[in-house]
Amino acid sequence: MKKLWEGRIDGKKDASVESFNASIGFDKRLYNEDIIGSIAHAKMLSKIGVLTVKEYESIASGLEAIRQDITAGKFTFTEELEDIHTHIETALRERIGDAAGKLHTARSRNDQINVDMRLYLKKYIDEIVRELISLEKTLHSIAAAHTKTVMPGYTHLQPAQPMVLSHLMLAYFFMISRDIGRLNDCAKRLDMLTLGSGAFAGVNYPIERDMVRSDLGFARISENALDSVSDRDFIAEFLAGIAILFTHLSRIAEDFIIFNSNEYRFVELADGYTTGSSIMPNKKNPDMLELTRGKCGRVFGDLISVLTLMKGLPSAYNKDLQEDKEPMFDAIDTALATIPIVRAVLETAAFDKERMRESCDRGYMTAVEIADYLVAKGLPFREAHNIVGRIVRHAVTKKKTFAELTIAEYKSFSDNIGDDIYDAVKPEQSIQRKVSMGSTGEASIKAQLVQAQGLIERFKSDIKSGSY
Amino acid sequence: MKKLWEGRIDGKKDASVESFNASIGFDKRLYNEDIIGSIAHAKMLSKIGVLTVKEYESIASGLEAIRQDITAGKFTFTEELEDIHTHIETALRERIGDAAGKLHTARSRNDQINVDMRLYLKKYIDEIVRELISLEKTLHSIAAAHTKTVMPGYTHLQPAQPMVLSHLMLAYFFMISRDIGRLNDCAKRLDMLTLGSGAFAGVNYPIERDMVRSDLGFARISENALDSVSDRDFIAEFLAGIAILFTHLSRIAEDFIIFNSNEYRFVELADGYTTGSSIMPNKKNPDMLELTRGKCGRVFGDLISVLTLMKGLPSAYNKDLQEDKEPMFDAIDTALATIPIVRAVLETAAFDKERMRESCDRGYMTAVEIADYLVAKGLPFREAHNIVGRIVRHAVTKKKTFAELTIAEYKSFSDNIGDDIYDAVKPEQSIQRKVSMGSTGEASIKAQLVQAQGLIERFKSDIKSGSY
Amino acid sequence: MKKLWEGRIDGKKDASVESFNASIGFDKRLYNEDIIGSIAHAKMLSKIGVLTVKEYESIASGLEAIRQDITAGKFTFTEELEDIHTHIETALRERIGDAAGKLHTARSRNDQINVDMRLYLKKYIDEIVRELISLEKTLHSIAAAHTKTVMPGYTHLQPAQPMVLSHLMLAYFFMISRDIGRLNDCAKRLDMLTLGSGAFAGVNYPIERDMVRSDLGFARISENALDSVSDRDFIAEFLAGIAILFTHLSRIAEDFIIFNSNEYRFVELADGYTTGSSIMPNKKNPDMLELTRGKCGRVFGDLISVLTLMKGLPSAYNKDLQEDKEPMFDAIDTALATIPIVRAVLETAAFDKERMRESCDRGYMTAVEIADYLVAKGLPFREAHNIVGRIVRHAVTKKKTFAELTIAEYKSFSDNIGDDIYDAVKPEQSIQRKVSMGSTGEASIKAQLVQAQGLIERFKSDIKSGSY
Amino acid sequence: MKKLWEGRIDGKKDASVESFNASIGFDKRLYNEDIIGSIAHAKMLSKIGVLTVKEYESIASGLEAIRQDITAGKFTFTEELEDIHTHIETALRERIGDAAGKLHTARSRNDQINVDMRLYLKKYIDEIVRELISLEKTLHSIAAAHTKTVMPGYTHLQPAQPMVLSHLMLAYFFMISRDIGRLNDCAKRLDMLTLGSGAFAGVNYPIERDMVRSDLGFARISENALDSVSDRDFIAEFLAGIAILFTHLSRIAEDFIIFNSNEYRFVELADGYTTGSSIMPNKKNPDMLELTRGKCGRVFGDLISVLTLMKGLPSAYNKDLQEDKEPMFDAIDTALATIPIVRAVLETAAFDKERMRESCDRGYMTAVEIADYLVAKGLPFREAHNIVGRIVRHAVTKKKTFAELTIAEYKSFSDNIGDDIYDAVKPEQSIQRKVSMGSTGEASIKAQLVQAQGLIERFKSDIKSGSY
Repeated sequence: MKKLWEGRIDGKKDASVESFNASIGFDKRLYNEDIIGSIAHAKMLSKIGVLTVKEYESIASGLEAIRQDITAGKFTFTEELEDIHTHIETALRERIGDAAGKLHTARSRNDQINVDMRLYLKKYIDEIVRELISLEKTLHSIAAAHTKTVMPGYTHLQPAQPMVLSHLMLAYFFMISRDIGRLNDCAKRLDMLTLGSGAFAGVNYPIERDMVRSDLGFARISENALDSVSDRDFIAEFLAGIAILFTHLSRIAEDFIIFNSNEYRFVELADGYTTGSSIMPNKKNPDMLELTRGKCGRVFGDLISVLTLMKGLPSAYNKDLQEDKEPMFDAIDTALATIPIVRAVLETAAFDKERMRESCDRGYMTAVEIADYLVAKGLPFREAHNIVGRIVRHAVTKKKTFAELTIAEYKSFSDNIGDDIYDAVKPEQSIQRKVSMGSTGEASIKAQLVQAQGLIERFKSDIKSGSY
Repeated sequence: MKKLWEGRIDGKKDASVESFNASIGFDKRLYNEDIIGSIAHAKMLSKIGVLTVKEYESIASGLEAIRQDITAGKFTFTEELEDIHTHIETALRERIGDAAGKLHTARSRNDQINVDMRLYLKKYIDEIVRELISLEKTLHSIAAAHTKTVMPGYTHLQPAQPMVLSHLMLAYFFMISRDIGRLNDCAKRLDMLTLGSGAFAGVNYPIERDMVRSDLGFARISENALDSVSDRDFIAEFLAGIAILFTHLSRIAEDFIIFNSNEYRFVELADGYTTGSSIMPNKKNPDMLELTRGKCGRVFGDLISVLTLMKGLPSAYNKDLQEDKEPMFDAIDTALATIPIVRAVLETAAFDKERMRESCDRGYMTAVEIADYLVAKGLPFREAHNIVGRIVRHAVTKKKTFAELTIAEYKSFSDNIGDDIYDAVKPEQSIQRKVSMGSTGEASIKAQLVQAQGLIERFKSDIKSGSY
Repeated sequence: MKKLWEGRIDGKKDASVESFNASIGFDKRLYNEDIIGSIAHAKMLSKIGVLTVKEYESIASGLEAIRQDITAGKFTFTEELEDIHTHIETALRERIGDAAGKLHTARSRNDQINVDMRLYLKKYIDEIVRELISLEKTLHSIAAAHTKTVMPGYTHLQPAQPMVLSHLMLAYFFMISRDIGRLNDCAKRLDMLTLGSGAFAGVNYPIERDMVRSDLGFARISENALDSVSDRDFIAEFLAGIAILFTHLSRIAEDFIIFNSNEYRFVELADGYTTGSSIMPNKKNPDMLELTRGKCGRVFGDLISVLTLMKGLPSAYNKDLQEDKEPMFDAIDTALATIPIVRAVLETAAFDKERMRESCDRGYMTAVEIADYLVAKGLPFREAHNIVGRIVRHAVTKKKTFAELTIAEYKSFSDNIGDDIYDAVKPEQSIQRKVSMGSTGEASIKAQLVQAQGLIERFKSDIKSGSY
Repeated sequence: MKKLWEGRIDGKKDASVESFNASIGFDKRLYNEDIIGSIAHAKMLSKIGVLTVKEYESIASGLEAIRQDITAGKFTFTEELEDIHTHIETALRERIGDAAGKLHTARSRNDQINVDMRLYLKKYIDEIVRELISLEKTLHSIAAAHTKTVMPGYTHLQPAQPMVLSHLMLAYFFMISRDIGRLNDCAKRLDMLTLGSGAFAGVNYPIERDMVRSDLGFARISENALDSVSDRDFIAEFLAGIAILFTHLSRIAEDFIIFNSNEYRFVELADGYTTGSSIMPNKKNPDMLELTRGKCGRVFGDLISVLTLMKGLPSAYNKDLQEDKEPMFDAIDTALATIPIVRAVLETAAFDKERMRESCDRGYMTAVEIADYLVAKGLPFREAHNIVGRIVRHAVTKKKTFAELTIAEYKSFSDNIGDDIYDAVKPEQSIQRKVSMGSTGEASIKAQLVQAQGLIERFKSDIKSGSY
């Protein structure tokens, strides 16, 4: 088909120009949304009398057939027909003749691309949220299984205080919950019909936008046509949400890459999610987690791409906007590929409880408990601290853990120390003393598990069951 | 005061190390929040019996006095006392003696900084939203005043269709409304008490977090201490919201820079918001708008800074997180400085209605109306289009507008054209024919004004009246 | 073929894992470089006696055949064989049997991928530089053709001083020259053989790296194996060079989008490089330039992706590095597609000399010349400026240009003004008075053209004639 | 002083406008360069007769006095005098009267700011390079001291092969050398006098730019005035260089944060460069290194800021460009603060040779040596590999290192193994066998040390001795 605007243009376009201009290479992913939008538009046009019922039916069944062809891979794409709209329109004309042309009444391409992208993104945000909920279920079930599994907690990657593994899993859980919240907010804000904006001034027909809105399942109608045709906020907001999500995934990855190192060995990643060496079976390269961490770069780049392209654009549609699609698609693909991988890596990881427990001892993580012990015996705070500092220094020198120091050694620092010190220095004891809400203590962990379960239920019910 | 952890450290820190490490240069902005948080914490400690009422009162009045000193500029900051917490604690000890030390019971610095930043950002998001509402009022009032002001609408910066100036102002209005929505969502998500997390494992005291939450005016309590101490999502989400806001402000700026150019002259910016040349009074450099556009770079940079620093951090607190503050402060300052400037520039701009009206004619923006006219007279669509194309070409060659073509000239292209063509080619006519919701037509503009007014009211009532 | 490291791994990899892990989707672009590198490595191995001459010949001809297959599209890629190295190795084994395995002596995949990427980027930097030189030739020839074409020069998009069109073209020229300089510096810095690094510790064989270096045409040998295997500086540096280049291309695009607007009409872009409307032949959407401007976002994103992924990586190879390729490929493709488009758009643009000349008058761009005129007649500087300010204000009110003011009007502001004022206010006169080096004056423009020609020659000769 | 362009502007500027517009808050850092540039300009003006010698002398001594005042902190800055140029000019007028005004002959502010920034950046690149050379000396001396210190080498943070500590230090060394190369290239490219460009069209005076160039110590003169006034490439290129540098510093930081962890303990950071806990003397928070890693975010942000602001700017000066300074200053400050800290942290770090040596054993890093041993005894490659895999699995199960396995245990896997196996599995042996250039083998390390020393010498001599 001749391009509509070619009437006035004398020379043919150079192939390199067609190629530079064409978006079909990536916007063909929107065929489904494009066709759904067109059918809803046609239906409305028949309602207001612009199309006869017969024309509408011909258009709708023609489009449906094209959809099936594309889905079945029986459709040929070419850069000559620059975008998905032109492809579908041309195919429709071939099938049903000139009636196809009427479909463009009261509609512009700026209209079409915007509604296509919103339909598409709405759907894929739901997909991503579903994957995140799955990840949350995994985190929840590991947390539920490890309420007694003691491990070292670090700050600055230095030994700090013991905690239970559930505490870590629940930390991840609540991070991811915020990500879901952000994506849901984005989905709500974009849930708006923009179709009916024309080029930006609206159209000369008494179109019924609310009918189209309802058919396409949007929550609201956009208020201003000029704003609508170049509004790409939803993409930038989505990409920001994905970027923040990937900071979380990269932090999980970093933790597990370190825990999987030979010096830590807190965790053994499953063979299916590592690569190795035939002669060093102990070597388990955490490729999946490294790629997860590396993909931060990718999604940050996607975000910057879209922000940059929006900067300083004059009002209404400018062709720059065509550059909005690939970053969005890339972020969707990256999220959908990565989340299940992270989930599976965690699900199949084996934790070495003994190593983690030992590490608490080697890190003298209960030093503060000795101080509390001494304070409880009546020593002033600063004196108690001073004594503990000296005990730790002694233990380090002797390469002994607190549990391995003899009572005589303890007493050489303070007569106030008795046999009950061995209880005090147990990591389990330290954990048990954490009684505040949100802490790693038993009651708090139980409460967190309940809260987390509640969130999972809520998130599940938030996903709209039906879709187009 | 000696740094708490200095006990074990033999050598003194080098000045360059103190300086590298210190955050006091920027975190002193948080003094108010730091003190408020400490008072609430102390009050709760007295409730659970950790502090006596007298100790609490001494702490509270001591902190209050320090707050007044800082506000009055009577407080000395030094890099030796690396951060705001240490400054205030040291000053408190000087005032009330050792009781000051008890304030640290059941609390960590990781706790403090997080609650400080949340209190601060909550407050400043409200400030920013207030400024955005002011900007919206200005947009609304310009829109209300210019429902009959005809101007050219462009796509690709090329003449497209006439519209009214209100349509443009309302487009800006609804962009900004989404920004407010995003900032409000961010404010809601961050509205969570994290205090009581300890280092990350919780604390050994039966603290009453709900009491502190209520005193500090937070909506919720954070669920997991480990997550809480290194959660900086709220900063990244805020910065993303500001980055998107600046894409909008930069687009407004770009429009007006172009409209203010000598070739357009659609608008004359007020002297107070331009710089000029004594010998070229016609030269009005739109510095304010250019800076607005340029500041996109700044806030995109702030966003990338925070995302980058979060990438791949191990769980819990890492010192890297200290780098989170300056980007947040910078974005707040930039937003609060820029929004009122944009508002004032728009408010004081004078629109040249005549130039804008003429430009519609010179751009042949009603060509499509001639085509519709011909179709209405019975010509087939393609033939009508062909004729109009030739008319425009003729008019361009003759340097005439549609209004300036004689009826003889019109008839030389088609006998179907009569005197009523002169009505058809009026931009006003074209605008009048836009009847769809959201269009630039009269009914739609009126409806948009009402919707916009409703949003202003809602946004105003959303801002929490009370604050700490 | 079984993956080498699969020996120890019990379970099969999940398809989603293979897909997540696989790089074949993009690294197949490196097949040529991979094969060239392998042949050079094999040749060296035969030199040091690790391979027999016969083995080497078998390997070399096998690889050559595979190369032809891939080039001819007769090669099947599959995600199961994760990367290009494995594909080629497997194919080689099928062709020549177990001797294929010997190719891996004294080499690692970390070695391979690094040398592949350096070979590839060296070649494509040359390609990009060639395109930039073509663009420079176009700029030079427009500049040479328009040494008398007067146009307005702006600052802040406000009328400032007249200049010749050559001045603008030469400004672009020297921008692009710096881009070439940066890319050439990058090419020089990356021109280093890293092969022979092994995993990072070097290899157990007395390999002759200088022989390989010479065969592959590298300038130097990398000094440290550990550094070499994870050095991706060259990609980041390349992407920074491309990002800066695109700021230039986007500025050229912005100028021409504005010049092509209906209010400016300084330039008419060729039909082949615009899209339009059948009924508005005056509408010429500068899609190519808008896409050029928008693609800034893309390449900025590529740069941020690579910087982000490098942040905080432990030494030596980490799988994150696999994410380095797509941004590099994307930036190469984007540059190679965009530069010729910009060149062609400029080459085919028609400048409207009359409009540009008129605009100088309408902008009162020679106001400063009147001031100089008055100073030359003996008036003090400030008085002269004051007079000129009033003259401009008068002219604006009367809607007259300087040329259109009568001598009586002039004299009403100052008796010092005589008939020679009409010469003084000509833009040509203003341009003629620019006598400094680098100015828009005639002598300077001529000198710049000579300098520019010299640069073109130098850049051409800098591109290595031979390549692998 | 009244702003020059205020003549035509009726109303006074609002304070918020002055503040928004003002750059004095940050551009005052350029006072030295601004004054130097002005003196050179004045000298040239006296040479060409625009200034009398007396006027020149008065200007020069006046400026010199102002410089001393500012340096001594005796100068008052105010936002009313928006920028550094206006401050100095106003002060000069107060000192020497109207002659001050003549200084502006044949010069524009666009001229001034550009030359100021180039002078400034040239100087500070030299400073940064000096610091990098110091860092290199430290790396070199650690490398020289540890040519026998065995440590594990990792890929994917998994045990791979033993190496010497020198190898790691030299890897850092050569990374930093590329950074120096990039910064030097940037310094060379920016080493160009732009003064004499006027607003963009050049000036009406026969200025002698070569004289000014020579006085200010620039290598070249800019070719085109229009390009010169808005060329900010040098800032973007500098920031890209700093961004890449920080990827390296962050990688060094990451290595040492991990090596400093309690599970690794390869290194003990000096007290002066860590923070700790009075009761856990073993806890050494590597704050300096964490901040170094975190500052990646900052400098990436600076880079994105400048790239973003340049995107799509029309030719010549636009006020957006004012936003270029803070990112440049921030990156300079960040680099100058961070590099010496990293140097000092490395210099004062104590390596635990024993731990590192043990870790090689625990990681079975010489497994490949056993395979080579078996191949040397005549076993086929695959069989050898299979045997080694089983040996490692056995050793892991028994929690023995290779050295701890008995000869009987070895022989149970293969009769080919004899007592000489104990030599083969020593890490030292593995290192000794690395004979390739760039490897961790002894000869290579020695050669690298020589190469590194050569680079240090070259870099030192590259820094221009004299400066303005």
